[in-house]
Amino acid sequence: MGWAGVRTLPWYVAGSQVLGVTCVVITGVWMGHYYGGYAWDGSSQQFNVHPLCMVLGLVFLYGDGVLVYRVFRNESKRSVKILHALLHMMALIISIVGLVAVFDYHNSSNIPNMYSLHSWCGMLTFVLFFLQWLLGLAFFLFPWASTLLRSWYLPLHIFFGLVLLAMAVGSSLMGITEKLLFSSQSSSSKLAPEAALANVLGLLLVCFVILVGFVVSREEFRRPPNPEEEALSVHFNTLGEGSGPSSP
Amino acid sequence: MGWAGVRTLPWYVAGSQVLGVTCVVITGVWMGHYYGGYAWDGSSQQFNVHPLCMVLGLVFLYGDGVLVYRVFRNESKRSVKILHALLHMMALIISIVGLVAVFDYHNSSNIPNMYSLHSWCGMLTFVLFFLQWLLGLAFFLFPWASTLLRSWYLPLHIFFGLVLLAMAVGSSLMGITEKLLFSSQSSSSKLAPEAALANVLGLLLVCFVILVGFVVSREEFRRPPNPEEEALSVHFNTLGEGSGPSSP
Repeated sequence: MGWAGVRTLPWYVAGSQVLGVTCVVITGVWMGHYYGGYAWDGSSQQFNVHPLCMVLGLVFLYGDGVLVYRVFRNESKRSVKILHALLHMMALIISIVGLVAVFDYHNSSNIPNMYSLHSWCGMLTFVLFFLQWLLGLAFFLFPWASTLLRSWYLPLHIFFGLVLLAMAVGSSLMGITEKLLFSSQSSSSKLAPEAALANVLGLLLVCFVILVGFVVSREEFRRPPNPEEEALSVHFNTLGEGSGPSSP
Repeated sequence: MGWAGVRTLPWYVAGSQVLGVTCVVITGVWMGHYYGGYAWDGSSQQFNVHPLCMVLGLVFLYGDGVLVYRVFRNESKRSVKILHALLHMMALIISIVGLVAVFDYHNSSNIPNMYSLHSWCGMLTFVLFFLQWLLGLAFFLFPWASTLLRSWYLPLHIFFGLVLLAMAVGSSLMGITEKLLFSSQSSSSKLAPEAALANVLGLLLVCFVILVGFVVSREEFRRPPNPEEEALSVHFNTLGEGSGPSSP
């Protein structure tokens, strides 16, 4: 059907970018306008770095890292792999800044760490993401893994890649919920403009992950098989490519 | 590899059932032990019906409805379809009871409805689930849709089916976060036994949706193609079966 043929791919990708940038901008405006902007001095302005970095790193850049296999579906597999690894490295670094921001703020303000479900899920997502990044590097970018091992790990890498993006958004939704309840203890039962903005942010984050998931899982959008490339590249050949639904 | 061959399917399914039942039991115990059990009188005990019904209906039964295509992979397609529709109908009815419980409690206690991100995401999930159930009935159980329409809608039905399960769990995580913050305004920065129990519930819900997603998306666990059945059944033939990664 026309709405999902490969010619429509640029529209879905453009939509995901509009959504992703909007999420980052809304997070920035929310923290900037309602909570006094950004600082790195242990104050609550340092906390504000946390949501911005997590949405930018663990949601938007992470999602774009996932999408490169569809956006550059006709480029060489090797280049796309390196871009995939680099985007996820940027996502990792920005997430680490975001995590340091909140731990540092908590410690300066004597707020205990890691008590909420948001922190448990968020930390689990970050640790698994770091692990998945290391495994991806070891299996697919370095020439260590056999083709059998690669084709065994590939579907798991893809499955957990999408699971972690969904977990990042789930953790963000809990973060939004917490922030709104903490900041308006007494008036939490009214829909203030701030709450409406934050709720819209939550819905847009959900739309972003759904759109990324759709683009990645849609059969029509997959990379065309390239036997010549497969035969020529030894280190960068994943073998799974084109042979099953689990290729990136 | 051995850990994902079709013989391992019963273990994954058993694991999902243990996880799902544990989630329902923990929700029941959480509301029963810490919030005084259940009632239908507009009191806060009526609120307690809400989490229990949503976890039982929109997470556990919904997840089991998704799994029937793998659990009964050798039964007739028609029987499995009817079971799929019935399980989701039970999930729908129990969700409606859970929604009425919380709206009724809010109205009795003059608490405004639909202001939180939890309520927005949860209601969106419920409405889309109801729509998806109606579309599934119209496309796949009644003989109205052409085979072309069916094979067009099937991958969307599967994709959004999993998206909605993830959204149900995401909404539950926000619900847990809200409940803990509402119930312990002053001591929200300590990890009380109640909070530990509720956080564990959140993690188990995440594990449940990951396991269901894994079982459903794993190539090895799909229904074997059955050309005889396809040729014999007209109304219950989905055509997509066996021809791509998006068949149920």
